[in-house]
Parts: sequence; C-alpha cells; structure tokens
Amino acid sequence: MESRTGTAVGGTAHAEPVSVPELLARSRTLCTPPLKAAVARLAAPMDTVAAYHFGWIDRDGTPSAGDGGKAVRPALALLSAQAVGAPAEAGVPGGVAVELVHNFSLLHDDLMDGDETRRHRATAWTVFGPAQAILVGDALATLGTEVLLDAATSGDASATDAARAVRLLTTATRKLIDGQAMDVAFEQRDSVTVNECLEMEGGKTAALLAAASAIGAVLAGADDRVSGALERYGHHLGLAFQAVDDLLGIWGATEVTGKPHWGDLRQRKKSLPVAAALAEGGAASRKLAEQLADPTGRGEESEPELAARAALIEEAGGRAWTREEARRQHTTALAALDEVPMPDAVREHFVALAEFVVVRER
Amino acid sequence: MESRTGTAVGGTAHAEPVSVPELLARSRTLCTPPLKAAVARLAAPMDTVAAYHFGWIDRDGTPSAGDGGKAVRPALALLSAQAVGAPAEAGVPGGVAVELVHNFSLLHDDLMDGDETRRHRATAWTVFGPAQAILVGDALATLGTEVLLDAATSGDASATDAARAVRLLTTATRKLIDGQAMDVAFEQRDSVTVNECLEMEGGKTAALLAAASAIGAVLAGADDRVSGALERYGHHLGLAFQAVDDLLGIWGATEVTGKPHWGDLRQRKKSLPVAAALAEGGAASRKLAEQLADPTGRGEESEPELAARAALIEEAGGRAWTREEARRQHTTALAALDEVPMPDAVREHFVALAEFVVVRER
Repeated sequence: MESRTGTAVGGTAHAEPVSVPELLARSRTLCTPPLKAAVARLAAPMDTVAAYHFGWIDRDGTPSAGDGGKAVRPALALLSAQAVGAPAEAGVPGGVAVELVHNFSLLHDDLMDGDETRRHRATAWTVFGPAQAILVGDALATLGTEVLLDAATSGDASATDAARAVRLLTTATRKLIDGQAMDVAFEQRDSVTVNECLEMEGGKTAALLAAASAIGAVLAGADDRVSGALERYGHHLGLAFQAVDDLLGIWGATEVTGKPHWGDLRQRKKSLPVAAALAEGGAASRKLAEQLADPTGRGEESEPELAARAALIEEAGGRAWTREEARRQHTTALAALDEVPMPDAVREHFVALAEFVVVRER
Repeated sequence: MESRTGTAVGGTAHAEPVSVPELLARSRTLCTPPLKAAVARLAAPMDTVAAYHFGWIDRDGTPSAGDGGKAVRPALALLSAQAVGAPAEAGVPGGVAVELVHNFSLLHDDLMDGDETRRHRATAWTVFGPAQAILVGDALATLGTEVLLDAATSGDASATDAARAVRLLTTATRKLIDGQAMDVAFEQRDSVTVNECLEMEGGKTAALLAAASAIGAVLAGADDRVSGALERYGHHLGLAFQAVDDLLGIWGATEVTGKPHWGDLRQRKKSLPVAAALAEGGAASRKLAEQLADPTGRGEESEPELAARAALIEEAGGRAWTREEARRQHTTALAALDEVPMPDAVREHFVALAEFVVVRER
C-alpha cells in the first residue's frame, strides 16, 4: 500500500527541503493558511484571542510576525503522508488538526499553571481573562475534529480514513489531558517515582507527537501496522523531547545572562532528573528528599540555594540518568522508524527531525 | 429507509413508556451505565471529580443518588433512533455522547460564570478547584467523540454513521461554545438586541438539543432529510426551552418562599424578556434602559427595586413577547416533526417531551 518508489514529495511543486529549518518552514507555509481559515470560523471575540495566541496579531490587533512555535507537529504530519507515498499536502489537515489540539492544551495549561509568559509574550489568559482562555481552548479542540472531517467532505481523504484520523487525534487528546491531570496532581506532592513521571510525560508530551507522526499516513490510507510504527516513533521521540526539556528546565541557560536559571527547581517541578535523583537513594538523594519535603522557604530559594540543589541532583545521578534516557528514547524512536518502508529522503527527514528535537539548547 | 410499521421500541424488552417521567427514567436506565463506564476511563482524580459532578458520589466519595439532571437530551437521542424504526438502544451512544458534551459545558460555564451552586450542590470548581473543572470538562468533551467512534468499533453503528454522528456532535459543540462566548461578551454590555439574544441562545441551548434530537437517527442510518427535520425540531424546542427559562429566571418562584427571586435581574442578565422590553421603545422601555446603563448600585438592588424593574419589563411587553416567542418556537418544533414519518407512539413521545420542556415551573 505504501510506496517505496516515486518522489518523496509526490506531486507537489515544492523543492525537496534539505534541512530541518527548511522542513519546518515548508510545514508552516502549507499549514498556516488553512490554520488561519479554521480559526477565522470562531465567533468574535474568540477569533481575536486565538490570533493573538498564535502570534498573528499583537494585543492591540496589529498584525504581527510573532513566534507561533516551531511547528514540529505539522512537519511530522506532512512527513508521515510522504512516508506512504502520498504528497505532503495529503497530511495538511492532520498537521492543522494536531496544531489546533496542541494550542488548545497550551491555552488551558497556561491558565491552570498560572504561567504569565509563553514564547516571550504575555499568555492569552493574562491579556483577555480566564474565561476567554477556557472558551478559545475548547473551540480549538473542537475545530481539530472538524478540520479532519472536512478532509472527507472536500475529498482530500476518504470518509473511513478521516474517521480513523479523528479516532487517532481523540485518543491522543484524552491521553494529553490525563497527563496534564497527573502533572497538576504532582504539584501537591513532595516526590514522584520515575515511572509516574514517565507516564505523565507519555501523556502530556508524547501522545500528541505520536498522533502527529502518523496522522498524515492515516489520512493517506496507511494500514494499521505502518501507522502503529509511526506512532511509536512519535511516542519515543516525545519522551526524548521531554527528557531534554527537563534537563533544560534545570540546567538550560537564559538567553539574557547565559547562566542557568534553575526555573523548574524554583517551582519544585517533579521532572525526570529530580525523580531519578530521588530514586537513587544515596546521601545526595536523601538530602534532596529532605529539602523537597521541607515546606519552609518554598519559592523563596536564593540563587546559591538553587545551584546547590542542582548539584545534589547531579551528584545523585539525576542529570546523567536523564541524558541517558533521552538517548535511549531517541534510539527506540529510530528503531520504530526502521519498521516502515519509505522513500530514503523521507526517512532522512524523520531522522533529522528526531536529531533536532533531542539536540537543542532551548 | 425509516419504517412507519413495526413497534416503536423495536426489539427491546422495555415496556412502552406512557409518560414523560417514565420516558426520562427509561433514558436514565439505558444511558447511565455506559455513561459511568465512559467516565471510569478518566485518570484519577478526574474520575472522582466527574462522578461528583454527575451526582453519583458526595464530596467525601460516598455513593449518592443525587440529581444528575433531567436527562432530556438522552431521552431525545433514544426517541430519534426509534423514529427511524430502530430500537431505543441504537440511540444510546448518542445519548451518552450528548450528555458528556452537555456536562463538559456545565463544568466550564459554572467556572467562567463564577456559579457556586448547581442542582442544589456546590459546583465542582468550588469543591475541587478551577484546574480540575477545566481538565474534567476537556476530558468529557473528548469522551463524547470516543463513545460515538466506539459504536462503530463494537458494531452498534456503521463506520459511516458513527462519523456522521461525530460531525453532528462536533458542529453542535462549536455552536455551543460560540453561544457561551456571546453570553460572556454580553456581560460587558448594558443591552443586547432581541436577535443577538436569540443567536446566543441558539448556540448555547438549542444547538445541543438539535443534535440530541437527531443523533440516534443518524447512528441508525437516517438520511439527511430526516435527520435535518429532527434537528430543526430540537433547535426550535431548544429556543422554546430557553425562552421559558428566561421567564423563570425573572418570575420563577423559589422553592422555599414561593416568591419570585428575580435572580436574572440581580445579575443584570441580558435575557429575552429584557431584550424584548428594551426593543419596545415606550416610556417603560426607556426607563428600563436608563436603569441598566446606570452602573451605581449594580448587584446591590433591593427586593422592591428588583420587583419594580420586573414590572417595567412586563409593562414594556417583555414578558408577553417572550411567552409568545416560546409558543411560536414550540409550534415550529412540532411542524418540523410533522415532516418525518414515524410510528405514532414515538411521535406522541416527542410531542410530550416538547410539552414538558415548555410547560414547567423550574
């Protein structure tokens, strides 16, 4: 059913991208217009709130070339269509749908977590109020399903394949919500196990990347074996991505100072390095556990105190374990990719995207 | 495709209900077990929060026979399956799905509106916090789609009909969100037109009742003409329901005192009687407009002041117009029903449900 011959981009007029930035740019070029068209369906003022959130306008309505995110998910969706011999365009409804669901979760998570900044801008709930953030999030999630069903109406996918894509996205959405629920619940606790942390990250981060990596193939009629392998690639890629994110959350440098900001430690976030360090059980591990169980000074820790806590985590092996975990997940993702016959150029792009996600500094 | 012969309940073992309470009880009997099974899929603690919201447990986890609502929407879903000659059971996934979406909207609306009580109990966000209300609402909306897709997996509906049902529900969900967005926007305004009010109520209330009235028929394979007429029945029934609700919101008596509580006037809600009174333009209408434009004393009005305001609305014809509007919508709903050939017993039930919705005191 999938083709190993034919050009990787099928019948498209686009030149074959040779680098990850070009791959992401192509994905934005193909997916942004239908994404904007979908958002334009929302009743006022939700269309404005959504346009602000996506970075298309400023808070005063001025058009903006703002940072709408890297668009890794749409890029994966387009590649997955090409993996089965279809043109990248066949994956566009999938790319738009996963981007809508991703942004639904960002709008709601920012509100739940009380985060005031995203992509260097004030979050939507701080500008337009909590009610708008809730409503627009709800609307984007719903639009995601509509966009997939529209692909059947317009003849871009068969009714069966559109329904399979809806199932894929809906299951991923619920796993994503389960993961966020675990994350919220973890905030009330002093510690979590490595397995709990991996389960949470498997929902919150990996589920939607898994769906993104298969949804274009599903829309193009891929069989379950192929879409299952692509989903596994995306799942492990997501876990690798999150392990790297957890490392950057502690040891990542700020763009301004170039020094680590210890952000996740300040919030006492239960990320992988912390969970792994707590599981180790040695002297540094026990000292870390004592600190995290102590409610005094929570959120008031000084820079030297946070640096000392980071050193404890490193001493207890949390940093090394998480680096190794990112490597393991990256390897497993590539192994899943090997199960799917696909044009070499498409495989190289999947491999490059995986590399891009794992080797990054922010 | 639809049958005018055959028994109204198809192959079911249930005795034919003869009254609206029996109809609603049958709907609860058929839909509550699969509704509970769907909710049980949620990750902890969302399953508990949802069970509390539905009235199945108290806030301390004790099983409760609480008031989970009238279940009008599931009853309509079951009847719509029977309208096309299928057993009531064929509509169950539709009934469960609309109930899930309805309760998603209640969880989010209660939070957005700051409502602290629903069905005589503390709202979920006041008990479990805003984050849980957001998460569980998100999860219930997603479950609604899953339940419909499951009907295809289990063979209870064809894949095509399940996908059509997903489309019906998804479109209704977005209209519902649009309506809530309008309602939230109206709070910032002194007045709204009758048309704006009808558009808001068409989304917030009528859209999901329209979907409920057709979803069982769609799952059972009804053609678009039949499902379209059933949707129109539900849409106008929804508008009639909301007109009655708006009347009760001002002149409805409290269960405790038996006196009107003027609840919607206290909140300066832009409901139909107010919009109609403002549109009339006479002396009472102008006096009402002045009062509503005056920010002083907002939310501080005494009982006599509220009673005087209700009298102004009545004098300007707002009460009579809304009563007449409820009657008009009720008549239009029944006219849409007449377009669909169906067993007499099923038609009588649709008619009885419409009567029940329009003639009520709370």
